[in-house]
Amino acid sequence: MKRIAILGATGSIGKSVCAIADQFPDEFRITAISANTNIDSLRALITKYRPASVAILDETESVKLQGEHTGNMKVFSGSKGIMELINLPDVDIVINALVGFAGVAPTIRAIECGKTIALANKESLVVAGEIIMELARRKNVRILPIDSEHNAIWQCLVGEEASGVRRIILTASGGPFLYASNAAVENATVDEALNHPKWKMGRKISIDSATLMNKGLEVHEARWLFDLPAHKIDVIVHPQSIVHSMVEFADGSIKAQLGVTDMKLPIQYALFYPQRKGNETCRLDLSLMRELTFMPPDKIKFPCLQLAYDALDAGGTAPAILNAANEMAVEAFLNKKIRFGDIPRIVESALAGVHRQPASLESLYAADGETRTFASNIIHNAIAA
Amino acid sequence: MKRIAILGATGSIGKSVCAIADQFPDEFRITAISANTNIDSLRALITKYRPASVAILDETESVKLQGEHTGNMKVFSGSKGIMELINLPDVDIVINALVGFAGVAPTIRAIECGKTIALANKESLVVAGEIIMELARRKNVRILPIDSEHNAIWQCLVGEEASGVRRIILTASGGPFLYASNAAVENATVDEALNHPKWKMGRKISIDSATLMNKGLEVHEARWLFDLPAHKIDVIVHPQSIVHSMVEFADGSIKAQLGVTDMKLPIQYALFYPQRKGNETCRLDLSLMRELTFMPPDKIKFPCLQLAYDALDAGGTAPAILNAANEMAVEAFLNKKIRFGDIPRIVESALAGVHRQPASLESLYAADGETRTFASNIIHNAIAA
Repeated sequence: MKRIAILGATGSIGKSVCAIADQFPDEFRITAISANTNIDSLRALITKYRPASVAILDETESVKLQGEHTGNMKVFSGSKGIMELINLPDVDIVINALVGFAGVAPTIRAIECGKTIALANKESLVVAGEIIMELARRKNVRILPIDSEHNAIWQCLVGEEASGVRRIILTASGGPFLYASNAAVENATVDEALNHPKWKMGRKISIDSATLMNKGLEVHEARWLFDLPAHKIDVIVHPQSIVHSMVEFADGSIKAQLGVTDMKLPIQYALFYPQRKGNETCRLDLSLMRELTFMPPDKIKFPCLQLAYDALDAGGTAPAILNAANEMAVEAFLNKKIRFGDIPRIVESALAGVHRQPASLESLYAADGETRTFASNIIHNAIAA
Repeated sequence: MKRIAILGATGSIGKSVCAIADQFPDEFRITAISANTNIDSLRALITKYRPASVAILDETESVKLQGEHTGNMKVFSGSKGIMELINLPDVDIVINALVGFAGVAPTIRAIECGKTIALANKESLVVAGEIIMELARRKNVRILPIDSEHNAIWQCLVGEEASGVRRIILTASGGPFLYASNAAVENATVDEALNHPKWKMGRKISIDSATLMNKGLEVHEARWLFDLPAHKIDVIVHPQSIVHSMVEFADGSIKAQLGVTDMKLPIQYALFYPQRKGNETCRLDLSLMRELTFMPPDKIKFPCLQLAYDALDAGGTAPAILNAANEMAVEAFLNKKIRFGDIPRIVESALAGVHRQPASLESLYAADGETRTFASNIIHNAIAA
């Protein structure tokens, strides 16, 4: 019986983790959950799973929750609350499904506590990949990727020697604007950008998928998870989203992992690895798989992908700047303060304008803060203009 | 330095093995080669590789060859000659690239001699799969599949637990008659049938690819190589021949192996396993991989595939009967004695008409002989009619 803490339990990934726990009640118990602001969903999860501990961002809500549950359930609050959950003795695996930079510190904390991490939070490795992987090696902690792409690569690499890998090929659906004109993309609405053709996901990652920044962040993740330089990580657009990614080996052979577009599949793989357990709900119907198409990404229409490669090449705090500027820009777009086409421009400006430094935890946090100030100024001026 | 014997060195597979040996001269030495009747090609190989031993079917030719090479090269002859090559002390790996039933006894011999076998001869496992796999287990001998499909499955299974496999999906190009009418297939000419759209192969296997019997024989091979029942082995038509086969796991995940249509790739994998060595000549250009299509096989137009499944279900000597009838029918077709459409009819008649028995080496050899008599009668009568 593995005991699971879900950080960000009320989001899309959290729900898929719960679905797997429901399917395999003898294998998993959800002992700790956190939520940001979605108190109603959190209450429903508490009723269903009766976790020993919960964390909620808001202090007042936490007091209310504690009042409702006079039993043994502990309630933590604030961003510190999440950190408390991680080190609980009845937690074996930490699922980090937090959104954005807020996920970085909990990943580091989990490694320091020696807990296995199932990582859905992309930003952890984008911002602090080198530091996190080095720490994980030192603490002998496994980081299990539950992104569908990195999970696919992990599956393709099982039983293979690292020295035999020529390159990784991340597949990208291409997002909702794959066939849109450049002008239409520039002025895309929030609803259009959120309308992902293949995956039902949270709002931040849906917008990142529409700009292809999501794929850029995944290039960063792959660089650290699989210890490969950026030039060995390629992206190919595959609109059907059936091939979740591929690995090309030195001899010319390519292995691909295919499956339904359902996060339960990579989550289950990570939680049961190295075993495979039967799951009839995630079967890909091959009789429906008539045609798989592939094409190179359009780096002109979607500048974020190249910006991500550039930041990875630059190293130091550049990825933290990329990420913070992107988080700010996406939030401003979702709040209808800027145009869709402004997102890459804000990221590009930040990469050019924010002072870069070698990477350390301090410099990365500083870069995140500076970039947020820098980006909010641009956004403010854009609105004023 | 691995020392290789190539049985059937002058054929298509033999040439690919030589090409790999040429690319990696420090890793492999070709110490023994055999040929059936192609004496000119054999002479060229002798000049190039200076093997310590050769075997040629024809007695007179063997005497001539021995006369030409007064040095240390040993020349063997007859079907016994091949058996002599296998047990030579300077042979580590036996490549069995023989065509048809003639490959069965050398496979068994290699296992008995404790030699690693790279198996391209399909008929070994079709005819005597159970006996051969049991013998290989007892003698602790590895059988390395160099068929592109089984090699692909092997690659997909590396690092996976056998209990996690739900099914194997063999891909089939569909052959030259994928889009032909039933009437056109019935009366297809030899040239049309030999004109495979994707693979350059020997004559026997090219005709088997055109009837889909080749895929049926591969279902048999997969059944024994991977110890899976027939209902866990499916066939899907994939005209581009880029995905060489797939494995579906219990959790719904599918792994596929992709590559160029070049036998050097699976041969290299088998010879270097578990290592992957760099080979720039076998790279799949992903920018050319625009579209991969898949469709179910047409078992009405190509009855041989279902006949192969039926023979596998029947067990005992039925697969030997299937194989012998098919060999006879293909030869008769290549000699323009029967129509293309007669091939499945002859196989079906043999499966219905030749007495079946439980499998033993004796009964399998007897079934092979009886079926050849049975089939030659049908062919004779068909010509007379």
